[in-house]
Amino acid sequence: MKIAQIAPLYEAVPPKLYGGTERIVAYLADALVDLGHDVTLFAAADARTHATLVPARDQAIRLDPAPLKSDLAAHLSMLHEVRRRAGEFDVLHFHVDLLHFPFFEEAASRTLTTLHGRLDLKDLADAYWRWPQFPLVSISNHQRRPLRFATWLGTVQHGLPQHLLPFKAVPSGGYLAFLGRISPEKRPDRAIALAHRTGLPLRIAAKVDHADRHYFRDEIEPLLDDPLIEYIGEIDDAGKAEFLGNAAALVFPIDWPEPFGLVMIEAMSCGTPVVAWRCGSVPEVIDQGVTGFVVDDEDGAVAAIARLPELSRARIRQTFERRFTAEVMARHYVELYEGLLRGDGEALRRTA
Amino acid sequence: MKIAQIAPLYEAVPPKLYGGTERIVAYLADALVDLGHDVTLFAAADARTHATLVPARDQAIRLDPAPLKSDLAAHLSMLHEVRRRAGEFDVLHFHVDLLHFPFFEEAASRTLTTLHGRLDLKDLADAYWRWPQFPLVSISNHQRRPLRFATWLGTVQHGLPQHLLPFKAVPSGGYLAFLGRISPEKRPDRAIALAHRTGLPLRIAAKVDHADRHYFRDEIEPLLDDPLIEYIGEIDDAGKAEFLGNAAALVFPIDWPEPFGLVMIEAMSCGTPVVAWRCGSVPEVIDQGVTGFVVDDEDGAVAAIARLPELSRARIRQTFERRFTAEVMARHYVELYEGLLRGDGEALRRTA
Repeated sequence: MKIAQIAPLYEAVPPKLYGGTERIVAYLADALVDLGHDVTLFAAADARTHATLVPARDQAIRLDPAPLKSDLAAHLSMLHEVRRRAGEFDVLHFHVDLLHFPFFEEAASRTLTTLHGRLDLKDLADAYWRWPQFPLVSISNHQRRPLRFATWLGTVQHGLPQHLLPFKAVPSGGYLAFLGRISPEKRPDRAIALAHRTGLPLRIAAKVDHADRHYFRDEIEPLLDDPLIEYIGEIDDAGKAEFLGNAAALVFPIDWPEPFGLVMIEAMSCGTPVVAWRCGSVPEVIDQGVTGFVVDDEDGAVAAIARLPELSRARIRQTFERRFTAEVMARHYVELYEGLLRGDGEALRRTA
Repeated sequence: MKIAQIAPLYEAVPPKLYGGTERIVAYLADALVDLGHDVTLFAAADARTHATLVPARDQAIRLDPAPLKSDLAAHLSMLHEVRRRAGEFDVLHFHVDLLHFPFFEEAASRTLTTLHGRLDLKDLADAYWRWPQFPLVSISNHQRRPLRFATWLGTVQHGLPQHLLPFKAVPSGGYLAFLGRISPEKRPDRAIALAHRTGLPLRIAAKVDHADRHYFRDEIEPLLDDPLIEYIGEIDDAGKAEFLGNAAALVFPIDWPEPFGLVMIEAMSCGTPVVAWRCGSVPEVIDQGVTGFVVDDEDGAVAAIARLPELSRARIRQTFERRFTAEVMARHYVELYEGLLRGDGEALRRTA
């Protein structure tokens, strides 16, 4: 199948540092190539991909040192080019929210749009009402809730390259791991409280965004001066395998409607169980009592930690391989693409 | 003529506080109504206008307290609605940069797009190359420089309602005025140095944006503890008439490619001369030796201050009325609209 993947231009594909959407597009494009498809990737020129790259900007926007940039103009130019070449592809798969809608109204039935962010923003419902002809994909069922009426073709969970974060049969650490950003909705304070309640050490590998520096300084930093808590800053992919693989569990104490939560499946890839608060996608990602525990509060989390020895790290890894590899994700998308070619997109449009 | 004006949704039309583009759209829409045209304004619902308002959002985005908003989705929804109703209008006049291009490619020859911002951003040239069929209007000739190749139909300078800021024949103040934002490119430090060189008091009426608070604290605040300098913070429209009308001159010591510089004509409306550094639009807005002086450096500014008594405040006001009222601006736009109806847009498209 001839497939175009259209990535955002904010981060490299995959990102040099953080950045979720461009990372998934990178994994998906490579996995589709591995499945034998003819994949063209529209992305910034610093992409590393097995697909055919169409560079839409000399480099990704966020780390581009140019003082004056227009992310909107850059994306509009890319979409202009995608449309010019649209006839070359069987399916066009967009990852740029809804910016492409005005460009592809006539070709909507052979497009797929994966929405990567939270959807409970004030202005979204009106916009998605206006373009019902575009088949949408959610990354969790929970993510759809603010836009139930929209034209959902399916939910496709994220996946990771199978060998990116290797299985660790015997972890060396005996600590709880917190990985991500220090921010109020990620609730590192809950992870710290859990360490105190259980007596287990907590290691925090997290970046502090500029927007969250006051929260870090006022709410979290005072809690770090404690022998149980170790703050190790930001880590890269290599550090991540080590950090997650050696943990007794990943703690994911979020307090916001997480659309997916990539770090949960990163832990599972290492065989590490997840203890996560019931929020957003969490119950869809964790197999309760198999890959971890979904909890409702701190007491629940303490009880879950006590039950960690019941879980099998090998079985966690098996579950990861069955549900969350990039190949699984790519095969699921191929099913949807094939449906579009059979007319599912047109059928959706008529019923929308 | 049936004219649609399409405003940005960031600020109310006109803005409750600062905000240049929405202010000009408000003045233009009302002036076109006064000239007898049938004007429809697409804008946020908190607009105050004599045109027929099509509310595109319940309120302007920036001051909307909703925690999660999408300015992009809001603008796309508005443009979807404008396109749905496009057949009702002779001319569609856009003030939303280039976001409407993918919507109106077929109708481009009866659209007009006024660009309100600086154009020396990295991603703009590629985008404007791709949509040459859209007739553009600049707000100064200088503004065009980074995009000389683009499809320019004309330059229309901004205008103010004639009676908004009344003429003050005899100013009471004897001070230099600085009005705007405290930021490195506005160079309040130059205004302060000029006060020291001339011995004239300087009054600074300016807001400090969050982004500029370090600049204010480190570079400007230490200079304010001086009997010659008075910092009076932000002022509203009523305060502006008083502040500008009683000044000996407005000092406009900018150090960036200003696309227009509304405050210069606000001063002229009061009969107050302008001493401005040669930058961006400045030489196009000031009639040298009539409404003020264009200078190249601090020495030039000192010399200009010495020559202020040569200028006639009445003649400054007359020049304002001849060049910079909203009616003059509206009549200029009507000429361009009429040209579009005669086919100027199509002709441009063929030569583009």
